Amino acid sequence: MPPPCPPPFDDGFRRHLHTLFCWRRDVRHFRTDPLPALLQARLLASCALAPSVGLSEPWRLVAVDDPDRRAAVRRNFLASNHLAQQAVQAGRAQDYARLKLAGLDQAPWHLAVFCESDPAQGGGLGRQSMPETLAFSAVMAIHTLWLAARAEGVGLGWVSILDAGTMTSILDVPPEWRFIAYLCLGYPAAEDDVPELERAGWEVRGASGAAVLQR
Amino acid sequence: MPPPCPPPFDDGFRRHLHTLFCWRRDVRHFRTDPLPALLQARLLASCALAPSVGLSEPWRLVAVDDPDRRAAVRRNFLASNHLAQQAVQAGRAQDYARLKLAGLDQAPWHLAVFCESDPAQGGGLGRQSMPETLAFSAVMAIHTLWLAARAEGVGLGWVSILDAGTMTSILDVPPEWRFIAYLCLGYPAAEDDVPELERAGWEVRGASGAAVLQR
Repeated sequence: MPPPCPPPFDDGFRRHLHTLFCWRRDVRHFRTDPLPALLQARLLASCALAPSVGLSEPWRLVAVDDPDRRAAVRRNFLASNHLAQQAVQAGRAQDYARLKLAGLDQAPWHLAVFCESDPAQGGGLGRQSMPETLAFSAVMAIHTLWLAARAEGVGLGWVSILDAGTMTSILDVPPEWRFIAYLCLGYPAAEDDVPELERAGWEVRGASGAAVLQR
Repeated sequence: MPPPCPPPFDDGFRRHLHTLFCWRRDVRHFRTDPLPALLQARLLASCALAPSVGLSEPWRLVAVDDPDRRAAVRRNFLASNHLAQQAVQAGRAQDYARLKLAGLDQAPWHLAVFCESDPAQGGGLGRQSMPETLAFSAVMAIHTLWLAARAEGVGLGWVSILDAGTMTSILDVPPEWRFIAYLCLGYPAAEDDVPELERAGWEVRGASGAAVLQR
């Protein structure tokens, strides 16, 4: 049997895909109304189509609903942010923290993402020289979820100012799971196609983003 | 001035996006004809729209054309693969290596991806607790490139069986750049919507891919 023909992606689709890349934002301000269960299921189904090293699918998703656990995540954020402020420009870091806290407090759907450190699936193929390709696979699952969410009008904010070891104990997951990211999801309170850090005058996209060195 | 309205992504676009996720493949067999320069430029422009921690855009791309450097990358792959075979099922690892070698030998466009270990851009925001979010940003740039490529009918294969330190010296890049991935790009020699590892009977997508733990 011949392999199936690839679907024809046309100029119209490519234009919209480019628009999706432009409009994907790290969202920090959410409406608090919950996301429909069917919509959540569709997003998780897209997420599961992400590439993974050796087809190991090492990502592990944890939906965090319990108010006590959410409060513990918030405390972890505040403590980690306190440490981080010693390293970056203080005023800016405080404002940045406020944005992230808004996401934690408002977003109706919280997803923690972990990564198996030695999954049986995949037979170890492709990851012996660079074990971090497992974590990289989990990151591509997050990015797939991010794009699928944006195409449904759903925003995602990635919280990274967290102590990883503490997350493992707060969420009571196997100690061999590596913490990758904490995601806030919900309908955005506002829409924009310019990154919030750029709108706040903190940073702009640089010339290096699309530069290529020749060798 | 009010922020711009978000573009309306409709059901048709979402269906095509899902199809794109389904058809994105780790491609190993390429036609050897080069990719048009304008197409390469479009793909790099999409890649530059990827999310990054603190808007740091830490990815650094290196196009590898020099035959001697390509040969050195191939030798690095063979040496790393020899070591990897001691850890995974030998016959399977050999077949897997053969697939990856085919990609290295046939693909017209080779891109090495590195990551700045302490970029000035972004002011250090968001990455103090988890410095690996810099590498994660580079991975999302790769995934953006991967999807944009697939939408243009271009295949991408990720080679991860490489010694990272050796890559830095082969490609003569700053020693503080961390090696992330070596990408082979070109028109696929064949198309399929089932992962090659699954077609070869080595691995299948598992139930864990879309599973969510409740906490």
